[in-house]
Order: sequence, then structure tokens, then C-alpha cells
Amino acid sequence: MDKIEHLGIAVHDLEISNKLFEKLLGTSPFKTEEVVSEKVKTSFFKLGPNKIELLQATATDSVIAKYLKNNGEGVHHVAFATNNLEADLNRLGEQGFKVLEGFPKKGADNKNVAFLHPRETNGILVELCEDIKGTNKREDNC
Amino acid sequence: MDKIEHLGIAVHDLEISNKLFEKLLGTSPFKTEEVVSEKVKTSFFKLGPNKIELLQATATDSVIAKYLKNNGEGVHHVAFATNNLEADLNRLGEQGFKVLEGFPKKGADNKNVAFLHPRETNGILVELCEDIKGTNKREDNC
Repeated sequence: MDKIEHLGIAVHDLEISNKLFEKLLGTSPFKTEEVVSEKVKTSFFKLGPNKIELLQATATDSVIAKYLKNNGEGVHHVAFATNNLEADLNRLGEQGFKVLEGFPKKGADNKNVAFLHPRETNGILVELCEDIKGTNKREDNC
Repeated sequence: MDKIEHLGIAVHDLEISNKLFEKLLGTSPFKTEEVVSEKVKTSFFKLGPNKIELLQATATDSVIAKYLKNNGEGVHHVAFATNNLEADLNRLGEQGFKVLEGFPKKGADNKNVAFLHPRETNGILVELCEDIKGTNKREDNC
């Protein structure tokens, strides 16, 4: 794994939090995106080699809605960049980490993504993400 | 602010979590450090431009002990690198963010650090950190 690709932050209201993070980071989101399959609206901020992804639920049964109900706003997941998702998942599987059911699959920001079960990762929801070839410029890659 | 300098992760047992993150990230901690004033033992992993800091409390009244009691293990803070801590704190203060009492001051990893109150930052404890000049090589800088 190469770097922290992004932090996923669960928020109640994307519009309000976009303004907050604009002030905090001194930059505007470079894109917004709805991921229908995950029932979320997202916005992305670029901060040098890293990104911040804000996530708002679009339905009450979204995982983000459930997270907010249980935890309030905060860091929902930590995503690490990989150039070989399959190899990393095989390596991690051999070492006892569990991949959440239904992954890997296409996620936001033109990435193939997989999540590890937080039971094996000190309570942190860890995402691994790999750029889908030919969709992003190199500087935007995972 | 330039990048995510590190994520601070609260753990019950540094030795156990060091092994876990070694397996997860495929690399060993590059240093361990005790910050007596904060009542924590820490270890640092390097992942390209970013770091992961694991934090174990060394006393029951450590902020990390309190965090673990209330939340369990997980992301305790998100640290952003700045090359001008004073200017960033002035800018953020004008925009309504509050600096936690007692900061800025010297923190772990040869940095001057300050924390913003999570009330203004979507529940996230945000750290700003600046390299103390002359102590770190450029590639290790905030």
C-alpha cells in the first residue's frame, strides 16, 4: 500500500460540511458524486497527495445513516491506495483480515474498492482502493 | 495546509497493535516515542507521504485512556501538515475555529502542534503540526 488515499467522513449535511471543510482546508471540493448503490452523496477535497471524502446518506438504510445514528459525525473509514488490489487482498486474507461481503466492487472516484472488517483492524473501517485503469490521470490515482 | 501528516489511532496495547499494523501496511514502525506530558506511548509507521501514529495511554487520566473508555479503539485525531502553524491558526481563528487550551506546544515526532475543538470540525479532533526547524530531514517534514 502506497499512501492514505482518502479519509471518508460521515456528515449530516453535505452543503454545510462542504463550507466547513472549505474554511478548514483553504480549498473547495474538486468534485461531488452520488453513489446510488451505496445510497450516499459525496464530495472530494484534494490536499496534496491525499483526499478528504465527505459522505451524506441519501436514504435512512444507507450505511452512512446507520453510522451517524450510532456515532454522530466523524471519520467513517480510512482508505489506503494500492496498485494491486487483488494481490493485497490475497496477502491480507492469508494474514487473517476479512473482506466485507460484496467486495471488491466499483466505488466512488473511479476506483475498485474493498473494505476490511473493523474487528481485525483496531475498530477502524479500512478501505483499499485501486484506480480503474484509463479513467484517472496519474496524479489523481490511488 | 499541505497534506494529511498522520492519523492518530488510539489502541489498548501498542505491542499488539504494532503487529497488526505491520501486517496491514506491510511495513514496521520507524520509531517509538513516549510523550510524558501527554501520558502516551506512540509508534509511527510511514506510508509514502503519510504516517500512522498508534497511541497507548500510560496513565488512567491520559486523554487516550479517556477516549478508549468512551469510544473503544479507533481514529483519535487527524493531523494536517502546515509550514506556518501560526498563520494557519490565525486564519482559522478568524473563521470561527477554536484552538484547544494549552496549544500550540511541542508534540511527538519533533513537531509543534495545536488541536482544534471538534465542536467546529464535524466531531473530528483536528491537529495541525509544523516541523520544528532543523530537527527533521525534509522528507520527514510535516
